[in-house]
Amino acid sequence: KVNGDRLWASLMSLADIGATPKGGVCRLALTDLDRQGRDLFTSWARDCGCTVRVDAIGNIFARREGRNADLPPVMTGSHIDTQPTGGKFDGNYGVLAGLEVLRTLNDHNIQTEAPIEVVVWTNEEGSRFVPVMMGSGVFTDAFSIDTALDSTDRNNISVRTALKEIGYDGATPCRHFPINSYFEAHIEQGPVLEARQDVIGVVTGALGQRWYNVVVQGTESHAGSTPMELRKDALLAAASLIQEVNAIALVYPPDARGTVGWFDVFPNSRNVIPGKVSFSVDLRAPSDDILTRMDTALKAKCTQVGQDSNMSVSVEEVVYFPPQPFDEEKIAVVENMAGALGLPHSRLVSGAGHDAVYLARVCPSAMIFIPCKDGISHNEIEDATPEHIEAGCNVLLHAMLAQAGL
Amino acid sequence: KVNGDRLWASLMSLADIGATPKGGVCRLALTDLDRQGRDLFTSWARDCGCTVRVDAIGNIFARREGRNADLPPVMTGSHIDTQPTGGKFDGNYGVLAGLEVLRTLNDHNIQTEAPIEVVVWTNEEGSRFVPVMMGSGVFTDAFSIDTALDSTDRNNISVRTALKEIGYDGATPCRHFPINSYFEAHIEQGPVLEARQDVIGVVTGALGQRWYNVVVQGTESHAGSTPMELRKDALLAAASLIQEVNAIALVYPPDARGTVGWFDVFPNSRNVIPGKVSFSVDLRAPSDDILTRMDTALKAKCTQVGQDSNMSVSVEEVVYFPPQPFDEEKIAVVENMAGALGLPHSRLVSGAGHDAVYLARVCPSAMIFIPCKDGISHNEIEDATPEHIEAGCNVLLHAMLAQAGL
Ligand SMILES: NC(=O)NCCC(=O)O
Ligand SMILES: NC(=O)NCCC(=O)O
Repeated sequence: KVNGDRLWASLMSLADIGATPKGGVCRLALTDLDRQGRDLFTSWARDCGCTVRVDAIGNIFARREGRNADLPPVMTGSHIDTQPTGGKFDGNYGVLAGLEVLRTLNDHNIQTEAPIEVVVWTNEEGSRFVPVMMGSGVFTDAFSIDTALDSTDRNNISVRTALKEIGYDGATPCRHFPINSYFEAHIEQGPVLEARQDVIGVVTGALGQRWYNVVVQGTESHAGSTPMELRKDALLAAASLIQEVNAIALVYPPDARGTVGWFDVFPNSRNVIPGKVSFSVDLRAPSDDILTRMDTALKAKCTQVGQDSNMSVSVEEVVYFPPQPFDEEKIAVVENMAGALGLPHSRLVSGAGHDAVYLARVCPSAMIFIPCKDGISHNEIEDATPEHIEAGCNVLLHAMLAQAGL
Repeated sequence: KVNGDRLWASLMSLADIGATPKGGVCRLALTDLDRQGRDLFTSWARDCGCTVRVDAIGNIFARREGRNADLPPVMTGSHIDTQPTGGKFDGNYGVLAGLEVLRTLNDHNIQTEAPIEVVVWTNEEGSRFVPVMMGSGVFTDAFSIDTALDSTDRNNISVRTALKEIGYDGATPCRHFPINSYFEAHIEQGPVLEARQDVIGVVTGALGQRWYNVVVQGTESHAGSTPMELRKDALLAAASLIQEVNAIALVYPPDARGTVGWFDVFPNSRNVIPGKVSFSVDLRAPSDDILTRMDTALKAKCTQVGQDSNMSVSVEEVVYFPPQPFDEEKIAVVENMAGALGLPHSRLVSGAGHDAVYLARVCPSAMIFIPCKDGISHNEIEDATPEHIEAGCNVLLHAMLAQAGL
């Protein structure tokens, strides 16, 4: 059994880096706070006797050797970057649960047959840089390293520059290698487990996603002297697109999602009719067919709004991955371990993307969810109980041990 | 007659301060660029032999004495602060037309009976700080100096701090004094004069305005794992308010206006449902009765959206002034001077607010409009012809001379 107190204490220490007044964490990918968090993880992993490698996109691999160095490792991991209004658990839990597995093995002097690796994946959140799940995406060939390195934030700083700045542009090529299996522990970030009063969510897969950048180009002009009928108000045109993104998701209940999360108005002055609006669209669905239909509906609406308003509306897709089922055998491992530990559990689909979604392309993968308070995540009030934190980590430990062999 | 070339050259020199790549000017109120513009005006005014006073809100008064120091001055002026995507002429024209009047009087060694004052009013644009028309508003008792000094920008910098920083927190109390009359030259900023092929607009008054800060408070949460029916998406709620602001204005054609120009989304991350949206509303109307009805409609819609979405929607009024008619006699002076100079002219109402709107509360006031290209203002491509610039200044010169007496 893992040491729940130690795991909790580590979570709280990491949460100090970028702590917000409201009890959350703001540690955006590849900022100096991210570096501090990475440095802390790395020192902890070295204290565990691990060797640490950093690859070209900044993924950090901490390796605990097994008896047989030729065997592919059993891997776990997640991310430590957060949303601007992030919580203490999203991602961080998966990384530190992995670390707790290492510490527990050390406590009991256990040598595994296969090596064990705990990975910190770069920029999973996709808030500062797209594509989302960037580190695992490059690692699994979902997109090229150059696509990732060339990506820029809103201040036009590239991943390449930011990685160098924090000293995590590693020497190891970023490329998947033989992996026995990948398990990732994570808070659910939704309301299902809490409603079912389950402690463990056995994740069968994740929704597919399509993300876009939309730009509506109108003409900025004076809010007082420009007659209503002569306006090209980019914000007014964008308003109906916000509504459409929501409406598109409502066509495919209960699992489709549509969100406009980032929205920038230019020149953003009270008495100037907005000349340009740029925003993100995030569409999700349980089947690729539905996702395609949502994509078609979005583009049709953009075309229509452009025509009706006589403005240009451009749509660029910046993220796409289809719904990803996890490995039936590894799903069963998680399910059986939860059962063996006497933990109430049930199967569910993840609405969020996770690094495991990409890992599933290169090795048998599965995920372990625990409940989070009121199903709320990507919010500073995100919360989870020490009991659930410990329970999920015990499932992770035994699932990994079952794969690695004693 | 004024020297049109000199006036044009001065406009272009001032436009260098804060010049943008697209040919416009970005010189927000009380920034260091604003200070540079103020310093330039002040040095030009001193070169004209004027005495210069700065008052407690930073208004700059350049005074050319008349024969009779006891007579109230004939006043002109405007502003040199601009929008973030402003042009070379909005405001700047009125100030430099006033300066050109002084220079022309000097050229011909003309002594007027009454003094003449050219004023640079602080923060007319209202883009960085509200209330709009701040300097003239305090001067005419529309609101208190403390209301103005306590106003903060989006980075929480107050007018008080910004004024001190640029050294324009003047010693003269900001309070109106006896003024013979106030004339202000300005580009129209709308399409009317161009359509009528007139050179001079005889402005009979300005639309009334009500400005608001609206805040929609929802709950930020995960764009993937939060089911559609459990969301409190502040941006989705705000979208229908954007549409309503537009619709409210369309009820009262042709002169009512409704604009959302400033719009901020929090936390503004692609995969986070927006938890909070703050935005401005700018309503304008030709009668106070219509303005009141628009106010009622806006507030009713905010209440309704709040109830329907189960979110809090707050509405705070930050600017209000009723429609302001100018002085019939001074309107006639402008009209007669335009006629005497053989300039095609017609009457019109201003959709924009101007410092003259507040000055009209304390002295007989009128305005002189000239056409601007395609009716576009609050845009870097704002443009006006040297001929119109000169013509408007000639009308200003003769209107002021008629009041000041030779
Ligand atoms: N787990 C998580 O919050 N990932 C961010 C990517 C997503 O938006 O699904
Ligand atoms: N003239 C001008 O652009 N003033 C700004 C105030 C307004 O928006 O009416």
